[in-house]
Parts: sequence; structure tokens; C-alpha cells
Amino acid sequence: MCVSGTLVDKLHACAAAGFDGVEIFEPDLIAAPESPEEVRALAARLGLTLDLYQPMRDVEGVDEAGFERVLARAEAKFALMQRLGMDLVLCCSNVATATIDDDDTSAGQLRRLGDLATRYGVRIAYEALAWGRFVDDYRRSWEIVRRADHPAVGLCLDSFHILSRGHDPAAIEQIPGEKIFFVQLADAPLLSMDVLSWSRHHRLFPGEGGFDLAGFVGHVLRAGYDGPLSLEVFNDTFRQTDPARTALHARRSLRWLEDRTARGGSIPSTAPVALLPDSAEPAGFDFVEIRAEDTSEIEGMLASVGFTPRGRHRTKPVTLWTAGRARVVLNEQHARDQAPHLAALGFEVDDAEAVTRRATELRTPRAYRRTYAAEQPLAAAVAPDGTEVFWGQSADEGEPAWVAEFEHGDPVRESRILDVDHVSLTQPWQVMDESVLFYTATFALRSESATEVASPRGLVQSRVIASPGGRIRIPLNVAPPIVAERGSATGLPQHVAFACTDVVGLAEQARERGLELLAIPDNYYADLAARTDLPEERIARLRELGIVYDRDGAGEYLHFYTRTVGQIFWEFVERRGGYDGFGAGNAPIRLTAQNADGPAGRVRR
Amino acid sequence: MCVSGTLVDKLHACAAAGFDGVEIFEPDLIAAPESPEEVRALAARLGLTLDLYQPMRDVEGVDEAGFERVLARAEAKFALMQRLGMDLVLCCSNVATATIDDDDTSAGQLRRLGDLATRYGVRIAYEALAWGRFVDDYRRSWEIVRRADHPAVGLCLDSFHILSRGHDPAAIEQIPGEKIFFVQLADAPLLSMDVLSWSRHHRLFPGEGGFDLAGFVGHVLRAGYDGPLSLEVFNDTFRQTDPARTALHARRSLRWLEDRTARGGSIPSTAPVALLPDSAEPAGFDFVEIRAEDTSEIEGMLASVGFTPRGRHRTKPVTLWTAGRARVVLNEQHARDQAPHLAALGFEVDDAEAVTRRATELRTPRAYRRTYAAEQPLAAAVAPDGTEVFWGQSADEGEPAWVAEFEHGDPVRESRILDVDHVSLTQPWQVMDESVLFYTATFALRSESATEVASPRGLVQSRVIASPGGRIRIPLNVAPPIVAERGSATGLPQHVAFACTDVVGLAEQARERGLELLAIPDNYYADLAARTDLPEERIARLRELGIVYDRDGAGEYLHFYTRTVGQIFWEFVERRGGYDGFGAGNAPIRLTAQNADGPAGRVRR
Repeated sequence: MCVSGTLVDKLHACAAAGFDGVEIFEPDLIAAPESPEEVRALAARLGLTLDLYQPMRDVEGVDEAGFERVLARAEAKFALMQRLGMDLVLCCSNVATATIDDDDTSAGQLRRLGDLATRYGVRIAYEALAWGRFVDDYRRSWEIVRRADHPAVGLCLDSFHILSRGHDPAAIEQIPGEKIFFVQLADAPLLSMDVLSWSRHHRLFPGEGGFDLAGFVGHVLRAGYDGPLSLEVFNDTFRQTDPARTALHARRSLRWLEDRTARGGSIPSTAPVALLPDSAEPAGFDFVEIRAEDTSEIEGMLASVGFTPRGRHRTKPVTLWTAGRARVVLNEQHARDQAPHLAALGFEVDDAEAVTRRATELRTPRAYRRTYAAEQPLAAAVAPDGTEVFWGQSADEGEPAWVAEFEHGDPVRESRILDVDHVSLTQPWQVMDESVLFYTATFALRSESATEVASPRGLVQSRVIASPGGRIRIPLNVAPPIVAERGSATGLPQHVAFACTDVVGLAEQARERGLELLAIPDNYYADLAARTDLPEERIARLRELGIVYDRDGAGEYLHFYTRTVGQIFWEFVERRGGYDGFGAGNAPIRLTAQNADGPAGRVRR
Repeated sequence: MCVSGTLVDKLHACAAAGFDGVEIFEPDLIAAPESPEEVRALAARLGLTLDLYQPMRDVEGVDEAGFERVLARAEAKFALMQRLGMDLVLCCSNVATATIDDDDTSAGQLRRLGDLATRYGVRIAYEALAWGRFVDDYRRSWEIVRRADHPAVGLCLDSFHILSRGHDPAAIEQIPGEKIFFVQLADAPLLSMDVLSWSRHHRLFPGEGGFDLAGFVGHVLRAGYDGPLSLEVFNDTFRQTDPARTALHARRSLRWLEDRTARGGSIPSTAPVALLPDSAEPAGFDFVEIRAEDTSEIEGMLASVGFTPRGRHRTKPVTLWTAGRARVVLNEQHARDQAPHLAALGFEVDDAEAVTRRATELRTPRAYRRTYAAEQPLAAAVAPDGTEVFWGQSADEGEPAWVAEFEHGDPVRESRILDVDHVSLTQPWQVMDESVLFYTATFALRSESATEVASPRGLVQSRVIASPGGRIRIPLNVAPPIVAERGSATGLPQHVAFACTDVVGLAEQARERGLELLAIPDNYYADLAARTDLPEERIARLRELGIVYDRDGAGEYLHFYTRTVGQIFWEFVERRGGYDGFGAGNAPIRLTAQNADGPAGRVRR
């Protein structure tokens, strides 16, 4: 149930993504036109083992008459499993029909079920659901399995059911490995809601939520378990997105988890867990690339804030503009009918080869760019939202080697602009979680704060991807669905923010040179005066220049925005006193102003 | 914050929908380019009073230094309110900064705030937030207001903050009406999640959730309150839908609530609450209408299950088919390029005039159909999903008068089909709540069970609208967003289910006449044998005919589906022994089969 489609779609998707085996979820089989024998044969051809049939529900803790009916149902299921060639079935702790809260009764019933299963060559993996009627803790399900004392009766451990309840997974190590028949993994955001809804709608692949899955797997391996690690991720999004893509995404999350588990330490030497190639956090942004059929309006904006035109690429209709360490590439190649948009970004990394090998092992989709002799090859991946992300060896000092491929440029000028501060990208809602894993797993970045911002057209969900040292900051935004449905032309714009030394001076200079800034309403400055102790003259100056302001402990943040061209606008920021945010309180002001502004910001109903 | 858009958009939308006044939410004002004076003048021109400025936060229960800062902030806000011409401000119980959990301290601070407010002609409405640091219960906020004992300090009561916590609203009647300065209303689904997220994302307009708002308003009126009833509905959907439409929807919910409150009894004679015209539940479906450029494929299907062609309408390219009490209208007028879809449905009602007056008072959008002399006029409204819903006087016996407008028909044949059992409509996700209010308020229908069904392309959310007597049943389904985005051609189909006497005989007859039924997989029948005690021969017969089966206590439900034509498929159902559901367990089987079937059911990635 991690992926959408029919049972046959799912088998193909999982095989193509490199999975060794799958569980069979009974409702998929019942709805399938293929016979059990066809499913078995297809899985065999695709090289997939069929590892677990599920679920059996409401088995134990019932009265004798009820248990007779359980056995009748079970026998039909075991016979079906024989047709599928399967030998392990998941048995969930009783939710609906249990009336007897007694471990010996449940153990006795599981033992009798085990006797019946043995006749069909089947084993039972008993799992404590987080919302089981009497059994909702893996320590209790283990006690029942221990008392059942039957070779065909063991445990299934699911990270969600254990970690969602806050149960300490350390006691897993007390369970003999051979009695753990199966392990299921799911991550989840840390939500405060009823555990059943949380489980059925909001699970995530490892690395995308708040659970310590590497720690969990460590306990399982130290217990001596050596069976499959299976993903069981109920998620409303993955149920409707392309199954082949979701399966690759799922496989990537497992590879990431393997690495994290290996790094967690104390893993038995028999456990085949391999590290990913080591990779430090990126040293900074290498460049951002804007693509459009005609980039001249963007060039005018960059010129007005003091960027230096560094010339044209020697083989491509591409120009480079720099200011401080900030490098903006303007690309008119293969861009017919395209309005300016952020097409690519680059990271400077300490070991480009290692990142390439990480990307390969994670099966990250790769981007291709034509490279001529004597040009600097840069490796690139395609992020889930379609942005191309490059990585190149960071220069020890000075500029990276690829800059030399640009000809006929001006001499470098002094600038108040220091570097790229952050790059903000709007994500289609269905790829947000995939994007988080893409950036964190491939580039040793971290998923940081999540927030939401009100706009006149709905709430914008935002998550920040950043490097621990703060050199890379990428707020990922999800536009409200109705805005997103209307397509990119009316979607939320993307933007690049530049770190500056003197943002007030920069704004003055930009105004003099005719750069059009986003209009900030007077009411904003009246409110700023009411809620801060900023001197009146200072507020008047900010207002005159359209600079907005935020405070964060001792830190201050001054920033202003240009109008939007195509999908792109620019922001100029000055961080003082260790300010570490993004002026989220000012974002509704900006979004309202962009909503009123034309053309890209304007959406009229 | 009930509607999207800028402050100016919102004022226009609320005025057009017939509201008397609005609250001003401070972030809207701060982000607006209009000055406070312009906002005041615009509201005056539109005839809107500005009733409440909000919010003030973190005011009371703080130390003296903190309270000095509160007063400074408050004074700026009061001055701003003077510019707006406003005299009432909402003060939320302290969430973030309270350190002193003492009613006298809080009362003393509110009293001082009241003194300051009085100098600006402002009054304070103090509200207990459900998640207030110390004050989270209206009985405590009232105790603090009582102790403050200041003419400019009173209470704001919000139904969400009271009912979400399960607090008994009866004690509202102990509060003097003149100390209740403001009342805010919101409904909400009964969810189990943290109250802050519930409040900020999932509130609903009255009549769409699970709260007893008529009871709540009754308490408020009996306390002697005679001020505005204001909607404060934080909802992720309404934040992004058209503000004019949402405002009308909001206004409709208030009119419905007024009626419900009046019917609740014990309302003071001074309270100006008016009933809606009385209207009993519909007596049944009058007709369903399928529209298409060419309806002949539908005609063939109806003929094969024994419908009688009743001829052509005397003025329009419209034909009528009947079987038992079921009437299907096929409409080829103004339908160029349209594939068959359910365009309208009709209800038989006891007092068509009363329903018309209800619709008018609820400002329900009305549909127009050309009617010639001597034709039966039928009134109609446009449901939020665009379906036209007609109502006509139910015939005492025999057929309704409009049937006589059809000419050249066959004599009525005997049929196994008795009536329309239910009509299932797919709703765009953003109109689901509006649809619930539309059907319940206009037609005295009820919103019943909600469920969700897995399909190969995502979860389908479903809510049932029904008449208490069961003559009308309308499951409303919301397709998964990605399916919905792809447009109606690939969206979930709509369908009409007919109640039958002998569904097995009907299926045999239909097969003989060449009707193509939806293929149900063998695995389904193997599972049916495993989980029920149905005799083998009976299951074999069901399998042969493609009939699916459900059980519900003593009741049984046998049903089968046709293939889909355009957006439409037909279902034939036999209810035995008081079965009251819709075979929800079989829906995933149907959705999977439709997914595999072409053309309308087929979506290939």
C-alpha cells in the first residue's frame, strides 16, 4: 500500500526500483483479475519474493465459538497462500472482537492457529497494533508469542506502532532474533492526533518524518533479526502518485536508512549494511541559473544592483553575472516561449566524486548537459520538482574553474552583495516529502523548521532545507492547491535572496538606477512603529525605501524585494547580530503585495 | 478570515452576500495598501458596520513591566481603531507571556486596559482561547471580567473555543447579556486532534460540522445578548476559494442557523429570529437527467434492463424512460461535444412553493429552464458542483403532471426495477462542505455517514446525504486530488442505482439482451466464499452474473454495475432484510475494475 495502481502495476514498479521482495496486501489481490497462480508466476519472473501476506484480523482473545470461525477463515487464507507460494502471514492484534484480556488465552489460540498453519507450511507473524483492543504494545505481543511457544508463531515489529506510542524500542534486543519473523518500517511526522488516523494517512518513508528509524533498526539487528526490512507506509499522497516513481523514492529511503543505521554504530558484523560515500555539507551555493527565451529584463535588474556582467559562455547562449561570491547564470538555450524561471542551482562541495557516487547509489535521477572539450564537467541531478541541481568541487580560493569559460566580460566590480543567502522554491504538493529526502540524502543537508504563511489565496506550507553551518538555505514552499492547479504562470514565484552588507545603501542605489521594488503598504510601517521601539526616523527611511524588518532575540533582519519577472523575483537581505530566520512575519505582506502586483504576481478571479 | 482575497475583496464579498457588518482581522489591514480612513469609507459606502477589531494577544497575567509594554501596544491599536471608526476590540486570553495565574491580577490588568480604552471610545471583549495558558474556559474568563467590573470590559464568546473543549455552554445563561460584548460562531467536524490545529485548519460554517450551534445560540439569546453573530471560520479551503461565493455560502449557513435556533424553542420574543418556510423531507426522486450530444448508447442500456421509452418531449430534444417509479430523462439540448453525464436530478416534495421560498431565503443560486405554456413549471437550484436540482409537487398517486408532456411513447411495461435507490455524485474537493449545507438546508435532508474507500488511484472520501425516511440517498464522493486535476473525462464517474425486486433475474435478462456489465474478478468470489457461509452454488451464480454481495446484520445487499459510458454508469441493487448501506466493502473492487476498464474508467499513466 506504499504505491498506487493495481497489484500488477505495483509488482512492476517495485521490481523496477530494485526491491528484492514485496508484501501482498489482501485487498489488492481480491480486486485483481489475475489468479493467485498468475501473481506468483509474475513475481517469479520479475525476481520478487512474496514475503508476507496480510492482514489477518481479530484472531485472538475471543471465545471458543468465535475462535472456531477464526480457524475456518484462516484455513481458507492458508490455502490461498499455498496457491501464491507464500509462507508467512501477518496477524494483527485484535481490535474489534476480543472479549478476553488474558495472555494465556491469546497464547493458546495463537498456538492452535500455529498448528493449523503448519499443515499448510505457513508461519504466523503476530503484531501489536497501536490501537489494539487489549494488545497495543510489542512487549505484550512478545509475551503472548513467548507463551504460545510454537515454532510457527513469531512476531512482526512495525516501527510506527512502537514509536507512535512512545514505547521504548530498546527491549527489542531482549527478543531472540529467530522469533522476530518480520519487520515493517515507516516514518511519520510528529503529530498530535488520534493514532489510527495518523497511521492510516500520514506515514512517511524513512528520513522524511520525526522517528529515529536508524536507532530502531539498530535494535532489530542487535536482536539477531536477519529477514526483510519492509516499508509499510500508508499515505494519502503516495496512494495517488505514479507507482514507478514512488517505488524508486521508497527504495532511496531504504538506502539512506541503511547508511544511517551503519553510522549509528554497534551493528553486528554479520549485518550487511553498507555506508554511502562520505560527503560533507556543501560549502555554499556555486551558482543559480535563470532560464528564459529572453533574459534581458533580468540582466537589467542585476545591473541595477551592481552585478558585474562576466561575459558569454564560449559555446552556449549563456551569460554569467557575479557580485561578491554570488554567481547568476542566465541561459537562453532551449528556452523558446519560456518566461524567466529558476532552472538550476549549483552547490560547491568538498568531494564532488563522493556526491556523484552517493547520487548513483541512491538512484537519484541525473541531469545531462552537453560539455565540450576543455570545459569543466559538472555533475547534476534532477530534483523532484524538476529543478536541476549541480555539484562541483569547491575552489580553494578565488572562483571555480568553470567561470573561465565565459568571455568578453567586464572587470569585476566592488559590490554590497556578498553571496546567495537562500533560494526559495515552490514545490508541487505531491513531491514535498520526496524533495526533503532528495536534498537531505544526496547532499548531507538537513530538514529544519516547518511553518505556514497566510496569503490572500490560501495558506503556503514551508519547510527549510539547510546545511548545519548555514551556508545553504532552501525554503521549500507548497502553494495552496487551487493556486497550484492554475499552473506555473499564476503559481507562487520562486526567488533568490542575496546576502548584503548595507541593504539600505543598496536599496538607495537600486532606486536611483530605476529598479522597481515591490510596494510595501504604509499600514505595515504604522504597525512596525506600534510593536517595536525603532526610532521614527529609521522607520521613515525603511518606508521610503520599501525595506521590511524583523527581529529575533538580539538579531535584526532587513530585506527588500523586487517585482516579479516571469516566475522570478529577487530579495536582498542583511542579517545582523546572528539573525537566523527568513522574516516569516513579513511574508504575508509580500504575498499580498505580489497578489496585487502584475503581471506574474497578479491573479484575478 | 472566513474568505480569501485582500481586505477590499473581502469587504465587497461580504456586502454582496448581504452581511450587515464584518470584523477586521489586523493582518489583513496591515497588508493592505488602503489607509484606515479609506477602509472606513469603503465599508460605509458598502453599508457594512466594522464590528470588531482583532486580535490583541498576551495582555493579562503578566508582570508590571510586561504590562506597561502591553499598554503601549494597546494605545497604538486604539488610536488606529479611532481612524477606522471602530469601538470594540477582541482580547484573547494570554497564550505566550502569562506568568501569573491569578484572577485578581488579570482582572486588575483588564480594568486598567479598560480605563485606557475608554479614553479612545473603545471597549474590550475578552475571550478564553481553548489553548490559553491559564484561561481556557469561558466560565473563568467571565469570572475575570466580573472581577474587572469595568464598563468597557466584557466578554467575547466563541462557539469553537467552548464546544471543542466539551465545556457545557448552559452557564452562558448566567452571564448578564450586556456583559457579552461579542459572539463568534464556528462549527467543526468532531476530530480527535490537538485543538490548535483543529481550530486553525478545520473549522466549518454552521450546519456542516458536529457542534450543536442552535443550542449554543439559544443560550446566548437567553442570556440577553442582542449583538452581532459573527462567523470566525479558519479553514484551509475557504482561504483559497472565490470570496464572493464563500461569503454567500457563509451567509446561507447563518440563515439556516437562525431557523434552527428558532425551532430550538425558548427563544426570547425580543430576539429577531425567523423560521424558514416549513418543508418536509422529499417523498422521493422525481427523475434523473442525463445530458449528452447523443444519448443513444444510454437508451440501449435502459432498454436492455426493461425501461419503457415514454416518448419525446413536445418542445425539446428530450426523451423520457421509466421503470417502476424510476424516471430517466435523456437530454440532447445544448449538449454539443458533451459525453453522457448526470446533469440534473429532481425531488418530489410535499410543498414545492415552500421549498422555493426556502431556496430564496437561503440565497441558493437558481437554475433556469425554458418552459412553454401548458408545461409544468419546475423550480430548480444549482448545486455547488453544478448539478441542477429540481423540485416538484409530488403526485398523490400515479405519475407527476410533467410526464404528460412526452409524446409518442410505448405503453408502460412491467419491470423488476422499482425506483431510484440512490444517486452518487463526485464533488470537487473544494465544494464538499458547501454541498452538504446545500442539500441539508434547502431540502430538509440530513448528512449521514462519512467513509473513505481505497481505489488504485487514491482514497475516495464519501459522505451520504439522505432523507430520514430513506427515500433519498445521495453519496457525495471526493476524488483524490490528482485524479480530480486531470479533469472530468478521467475523474470518478457518477452513477444512479436502481432498486430492484429480483436482481439475479434482472442480471440474467440484461446479459441476454447484451448489456455489458463491469467484470468482477474471480478472486472476489473466492474471498466471499472464505468469509461468508453462502452456499457454493449461490456464489457460483453470483460470479457468473457479476453480482457482488454485502451483509449487514440480518440484511443482505446484492448489486451489479454496468460499464461506464461518458461519466455515467448504472447500478442495480436489491436490499433484503432492512440492509441500510451501500456495499462500501465492494467499492474498491468496483473502482479497481473501472480503472482497468475503458474508456471512461481507464486512466493510463
